Amino acid sequence: MSSVLGTLFRISTFGESHGVGVGVVVDGCPPRIPITEELIQAELDRRRPGQSRITTQRKESDSVEILSGVLDGLSLGTPIALMVRNADHRSRDYDEMATKYRPSHADYAYDQKYGIRAVSGGGRASARETIGRVAAGAIAQEILRSYGVEIVGYVTAVQSITASIETESVTREQVDANIVRCPNADVAESMISLIEQVRKDGDSIGGVVECVARGVPAGWGEPVFDKLEADLAKAMLSLPACKGFEVGSGFAMTRQRGSEVNDHFRNVNGKVVTTTNHSGGIQGGISNGMPIVVRCAFKPVATVMMAQPTVDSSGAETTLSGKGRHDPCVVPRAVPMVEAMMALTLVDHALRQRAMEPR
Amino acid sequence: MSSVLGTLFRISTFGESHGVGVGVVVDGCPPRIPITEELIQAELDRRRPGQSRITTQRKESDSVEILSGVLDGLSLGTPIALMVRNADHRSRDYDEMATKYRPSHADYAYDQKYGIRAVSGGGRASARETIGRVAAGAIAQEILRSYGVEIVGYVTAVQSITASIETESVTREQVDANIVRCPNADVAESMISLIEQVRKDGDSIGGVVECVARGVPAGWGEPVFDKLEADLAKAMLSLPACKGFEVGSGFAMTRQRGSEVNDHFRNVNGKVVTTTNHSGGIQGGISNGMPIVVRCAFKPVATVMMAQPTVDSSGAETTLSGKGRHDPCVVPRAVPMVEAMMALTLVDHALRQRAMEPR
Amino acid sequence: MSSVLGTLFRISTFGESHGVGVGVVVDGCPPRIPITEELIQAELDRRRPGQSRITTQRKESDSVEILSGVLDGLSLGTPIALMVRNADHRSRDYDEMATKYRPSHADYAYDQKYGIRAVSGGGRASARETIGRVAAGAIAQEILRSYGVEIVGYVTAVQSITASIETESVTREQVDANIVRCPNADVAESMISLIEQVRKDGDSIGGVVECVARGVPAGWGEPVFDKLEADLAKAMLSLPACKGFEVGSGFAMTRQRGSEVNDHFRNVNGKVVTTTNHSGGIQGGISNGMPIVVRCAFKPVATVMMAQPTVDSSGAETTLSGKGRHDPCVVPRAVPMVEAMMALTLVDHALRQRAMEPR
Amino acid sequence: MSSVLGTLFRISTFGESHGVGVGVVVDGCPPRIPITEELIQAELDRRRPGQSRITTQRKESDSVEILSGVLDGLSLGTPIALMVRNADHRSRDYDEMATKYRPSHADYAYDQKYGIRAVSGGGRASARETIGRVAAGAIAQEILRSYGVEIVGYVTAVQSITASIETESVTREQVDANIVRCPNADVAESMISLIEQVRKDGDSIGGVVECVARGVPAGWGEPVFDKLEADLAKAMLSLPACKGFEVGSGFAMTRQRGSEVNDHFRNVNGKVVTTTNHSGGIQGGISNGMPIVVRCAFKPVATVMMAQPTVDSSGAETTLSGKGRHDPCVVPRAVPMVEAMMALTLVDHALRQRAMEPR
Repeated sequence: MSSVLGTLFRISTFGESHGVGVGVVVDGCPPRIPITEELIQAELDRRRPGQSRITTQRKESDSVEILSGVLDGLSLGTPIALMVRNADHRSRDYDEMATKYRPSHADYAYDQKYGIRAVSGGGRASARETIGRVAAGAIAQEILRSYGVEIVGYVTAVQSITASIETESVTREQVDANIVRCPNADVAESMISLIEQVRKDGDSIGGVVECVARGVPAGWGEPVFDKLEADLAKAMLSLPACKGFEVGSGFAMTRQRGSEVNDHFRNVNGKVVTTTNHSGGIQGGISNGMPIVVRCAFKPVATVMMAQPTVDSSGAETTLSGKGRHDPCVVPRAVPMVEAMMALTLVDHALRQRAMEPR
Repeated sequence: MSSVLGTLFRISTFGESHGVGVGVVVDGCPPRIPITEELIQAELDRRRPGQSRITTQRKESDSVEILSGVLDGLSLGTPIALMVRNADHRSRDYDEMATKYRPSHADYAYDQKYGIRAVSGGGRASARETIGRVAAGAIAQEILRSYGVEIVGYVTAVQSITASIETESVTREQVDANIVRCPNADVAESMISLIEQVRKDGDSIGGVVECVARGVPAGWGEPVFDKLEADLAKAMLSLPACKGFEVGSGFAMTRQRGSEVNDHFRNVNGKVVTTTNHSGGIQGGISNGMPIVVRCAFKPVATVMMAQPTVDSSGAETTLSGKGRHDPCVVPRAVPMVEAMMALTLVDHALRQRAMEPR
Repeated sequence: MSSVLGTLFRISTFGESHGVGVGVVVDGCPPRIPITEELIQAELDRRRPGQSRITTQRKESDSVEILSGVLDGLSLGTPIALMVRNADHRSRDYDEMATKYRPSHADYAYDQKYGIRAVSGGGRASARETIGRVAAGAIAQEILRSYGVEIVGYVTAVQSITASIETESVTREQVDANIVRCPNADVAESMISLIEQVRKDGDSIGGVVECVARGVPAGWGEPVFDKLEADLAKAMLSLPACKGFEVGSGFAMTRQRGSEVNDHFRNVNGKVVTTTNHSGGIQGGISNGMPIVVRCAFKPVATVMMAQPTVDSSGAETTLSGKGRHDPCVVPRAVPMVEAMMALTLVDHALRQRAMEPR
Repeated sequence: MSSVLGTLFRISTFGESHGVGVGVVVDGCPPRIPITEELIQAELDRRRPGQSRITTQRKESDSVEILSGVLDGLSLGTPIALMVRNADHRSRDYDEMATKYRPSHADYAYDQKYGIRAVSGGGRASARETIGRVAAGAIAQEILRSYGVEIVGYVTAVQSITASIETESVTREQVDANIVRCPNADVAESMISLIEQVRKDGDSIGGVVECVARGVPAGWGEPVFDKLEADLAKAMLSLPACKGFEVGSGFAMTRQRGSEVNDHFRNVNGKVVTTTNHSGGIQGGISNGMPIVVRCAFKPVATVMMAQPTVDSSGAETTLSGKGRHDPCVVPRAVPMVEAMMALTLVDHALRQRAMEPR
C-alpha cells in the first residue's frame, strides 16, 4: 500500500515513467462537480517538461484521458480514473544505470526494498508520477473554488536568489508571467540567468516554492495527528526532491521571542483577523481564517552531467556520469505540484469538516 | 476521526488536559514484546513538567497505568491501553480565557470548528496530549531495539544559540547530561542562561530539535505518498508548536548545487554507504541504510506574561495577559516527544516492510 | 491493527476479560451531542450478565466511566474514552484451560497466531470485549436519533422456535418486555422454557437476532465495497458467535424468482416507497428509504458442561469439561450488541454521506 | 471514498458499464510475483458474459491490459493498474430507464444519493464493476499459491435444486466441467434445465455459491472487528445481488445444540485438526488450519422481461418492462467473483499476519 493518499477524497496513483502510462484514480469526489479534460489538461501543461528553455528539453505531450466517473462534464460521485499514455519508452540513456546506482537517486534504495526495479526512466521514482497528483489536484481546486478557496504557488528562491512575495495579493497570472514562476519580474530574470548558467555547467540547483491558500474558512483541520500543517507537511515532503517544509514563519520563529511572533486578534469590520500571520493561517492544527502559507525546500536535482563516484549492484566501486535531458532546477515545474498537494490536502479536510457539521 | 495515527502500528490518543486523564490505545503491537510500566514511565519522566528549573514549575507526577494488552510483562498482540490520571483539575487561571482568545493559541480555531471548547488547561490542545504519544513511543522504541535501531534526539538551537552535533555518535546519556538536552556542555550552559533570562522577562523563545535514528536497514518507507520523510514530517508537524521540518541537509540544500550535495556511494568493508549524508538516510522515500536525520522547528510558546491585544468570543477587541506556569522554551521537553514520533513512524514502516518480504 | 472500526466515526476497543478493564475510544463523534454516563449505562445494563435467569449468573456491575471528550454533558468533538473496570479477576476456573484447548473456542487459534494468550476469562476473545461496542453504540444511537433513525433488535429464533415480527412497528418496549427479548409473548415463553431446559442439560443452543433501522433516509451507503449491507455484514460477523448474516429476505430469495421478490416502487402521499421490502431497505449498496432489516445467526455457545475430546498445547489428545457460569443461549444478550453494530455502521455512513452533500 | 478495499493489499476499482472502460489499481502487491495478462485473462474469461447458453448473450471480449506495476512478467512492488476497455457503449435499451426506476435495481437509490446517474448499462452498479475485482483476485490467488492456499468456488443451489459438495476434495476442474459450475454432474443437468426454462419465461432465479480455501495456515485473521469471517462477509456482501452470507455451518447451527456442533480437536499424525468443521476453519476470527468454507446467497437478477409497477423520476407511478440481454441466474458467473473476493480477503490477512511475525 504505497500510493494512496487521503481519508475521504482519496487518490491512488499508478504508472512507471517508461511503462504504458501513468495515472490516478480519484475516489471520493462529490457528485455534480464540473470536470472536463480541458480543466485537467491546463494544469498538466503547467507541469509538462519542455515548456521553456529552463526546464528539461524532453518533449512530452502528456494528454489526459478521463476513463471513468464523469458524464457530460459532471462528476458522477464514483471513482474518476485519469490516464496519460507514455510516449517514448525505454531510453538507451538508462542502460548503464541498470547496474550502476546514481548518487542521491532512489535506485539503490529501491533495489534494497524490492529486489527488482524498473530502470528505464526511473520507474516509479520518476517525476512523471506527479502527473496523477496534478491531474487530481485540478479536480480538487475546482471543488475548492466552490468554497471560495484560491491557491497560488510561486518560486521564492533559486539557490541564493530570493524574493519576498505578498501572500495576500499574489495572483496566478503574475506567477505564470515568466518561465521561472517567480512573481517578481526583476528577481525572476536573475533566477532564469542562473538556471541557464547551471545547465551549461552540467550541474543543478535547488530552490524554494511558497504556496498560499486564501479563503479557507476557520475550522478546517484536526487537532492532533491530522493537524492541517501536519497533513500539508506530509503532502509536500511526498513530492520528489522536497526535503524541507515550514508553515507561516517556520524556522525563522525558532530565532524569535513569543512577544515578537504572537499573532494578535483584531476585529476588522466584524471579521476576526490577526494583525500578523506568523502562524500561517493555522493554530492548533486548525485553520483560523487567515491565508494558509507554506514553504517547501527542493534540493538540487540529483542528475548532474559530471562523473561521480558510486557503486554498482554487486557493490563494486565505480563512477557514473549523468545522461539524458533533465531539469537543472525543479522549482518552476514544482509550482503546480505544490499547488496540487495543497489542494488535495485542503479538499480532504473540507469534506471531513463538512461531515461533522450539524445538519 | 481526529486522533488516530499509523497503518499497522496504530495509536489513538484521548484526554483533555484538565479532564479525568489522558492516554492512548496502541493497536498493532506484535506479541511477546517486553513491556512494563517502568519502561513507559522512564520516557514519561523525561517529558514531565517540573523536571528542572528551565521547564514549567507545574508538578505533575504523570504515573502511567497499563489497562490492557500486557500480561506478565509481555505484549499479548491485542490493544495496549495506557492511561495517566490528571492530578489537579480546573485551574482558576483559565477563567478569563473562557471568553478571551489567547493570541497564537488554538482557542479561537477550536471555537470556530467545534462551537464548544474545554477551556481549562487548554483541553485537547494542551501539551498533555503528548503523554499518550510518548508512552506509545516507549513501546515503539522497544520494538525497534529488536531491529537494532537506536533513536537519539537533542536540542541544536535555542533562539540563535546553536550547536552542531555528530549524528553518528551522539548518545542519550550525553543528551540527558544537562537540563536543556543539548549534548554540547558549553553551548548548553549558554542556552540555559538564555532560557532563564527569558523566563524572568515573562517571555518565551523557540528552538530546534534534531533527531537521529541509527541502524535503520535499507528498504523502509514507501515510494510515493508514504515516503519515510513524508510520514516523519507529518509526525513532527503534529507536535504542538512545531512549525517546520527538514530531513538531511534540508533547506540548506536549496542554496547549493547538485554536485556539492549528492551523496556518493562507497563500499566500506562490504557494506554500501554514502560518503556524505545530505539525504538524511532517505532516498526516494526509502531508507538507504545511513542514519536518518531530521530537524524540527519549535516556535516560542504562545503564552507570555505581558498584556496582548486580542478579541473575546463576541468579537470585541480587548487585552489579555498570560497566567499560570508555562515553559519559557519547549525544546528540552520536546526531545522525548520528537523521539517518540520518530519511533512511531519507523515501527509502522518496519511492520509494513516486514509484510512485503518474501516468506 | 486488530480492533479499530469505522471511517469517520471510528472506534477502538481494548481490554482483556480478566485484566484491569475493558473500554473504547470513540474518535469522530461530532461536537455538542448530549452524552452522559446514564445514557451509556442504560445500554450496558441491557447486555450485562446476570440480568435474568436465562443468562449467565455471573454478577458484573459493568459501571462505565467517561474518561474524556465530554464536558458538562456535551461531546467536545474530541475522542471519547470510556472504560469499565473489571471486578473479579483471574478465576481458578481457567486453570485447566491454560493447557487444554476448548473445542470451538478461540484458544487454539490465538496460540497459533500470537504464541501467547490471556487464558483467564478468555482474554480478548471474551464477550466482555463487546462492552466497548455497546457503549460506543449508545453514542451512535444518540446521534442517529437526531436524524430521525430508530433501531430495534429482537430475537426471532431460539433453536427451532421462531417468531415472525412486524418490522414496521416493533418497539424496544415490546422487546424488553420479556427476558428472552422476543416481542411475541407466547413464543417468548416457549423460548425461555427451552433455554432453561438446555441449561439444566449443561448444553447450549443457538438462535437468530433480527434488527430493523427505521427512518434511514435514501442515499446512505456506498456503491461498491462499502455497500451498506457489506459493512453491516462485517459489523455483525465481528460479534462473538455470529456465523451468518442476511439482509432483507436473504437466503430465502435464493429459492425464488425475480418476478416474486422484486420490490415495486409506489408513490404514497408524495413519498416513494416499495410495496414489499425483500431488499431490506438497501439497493445497490445504498439505502432506499425503506426500513433496513438484517438477521444474524448465532451459533450455540461453545462452552458445554460435558466432557469433550480435545488436545492440549503439546498436541496430545485429552478431554475437557466446561466450567464456570456461561450463557446457555447468547441471543437475549446479543440484542443490544446487534443494535450497537447497526448504529455504529449507520452513523459512519451518515457522516460519510453528509461529507458529500453540496453546501 | 466508495471503491477501495483492503488494508495492505488494497484495490481501487473504477469504471462505468458503458463508459471508456473498467479497471482496478492494486496497491500493495509484494514484488517479484509472476504476473502476466494471460494469468488475469484466464479468470476474466470465467466471469465473461456470453460464455454459455445459460448466461447473458451479450458478447464482451473483456481483454485486460496491464498499465503499470509489472515488468518482464514480475510485479515491481508498485501499483498494478489493469484496464478493460468497454466495447459497445450507450445502448438504446436504456432510454426508458433514464426516467423510470427499475424495481429492485440501484437506479432510485443512486439518484437519491448523487442527484446524477450514468443510466446506460447501469453505470457503476453494473456487474461489469466486478471485472476489476476478478482481475485483482487473479493476482491475489497467485500470491496465495506461494503460501500453499487453493481456492475453489462452486454452485450448491439454483432455486431449490441443491447439491452437497465435499469441501476437502472438490477441484476447479470438476467445477468448470459444466456450464452451471456445480461439481455434481447430475444436479448440474437439472440446474441447467431450470435456468433455461426460467429464461424462456422471461424471469430470473437465485442460488447459492459455496467457496472453500484449503491450505490456509492457522493464525490468519484478527480477533475483533477484522475477524476473518467478518472481512469475508463484507467482501461477499459487496458483490452485486449477494444478500446473505454464512461461514461453516452458519444458519444451520442456530437450530442445533453446542454438544452437536462443537468441533473437537484431534491430533492426526502430529497435526492438530478438528473432527468436524462446523466452524468453517475460523474460530474467534482467526483461521485454525482447517478449510475455510463460506456460502453466499444470490437473489434473482432484478431484470425480468414482464411489465412491473414502478415510479418515474418525478415520482409518478408507471410500469416498466425489462429490456436487453441479462443473466437469468447469476450464480454460474458469480463463482469466479466469489473466489476473487475470498482471495483478496485472504491475501490481505496473509500480509497483515506476516507483518506481526517475529523476525
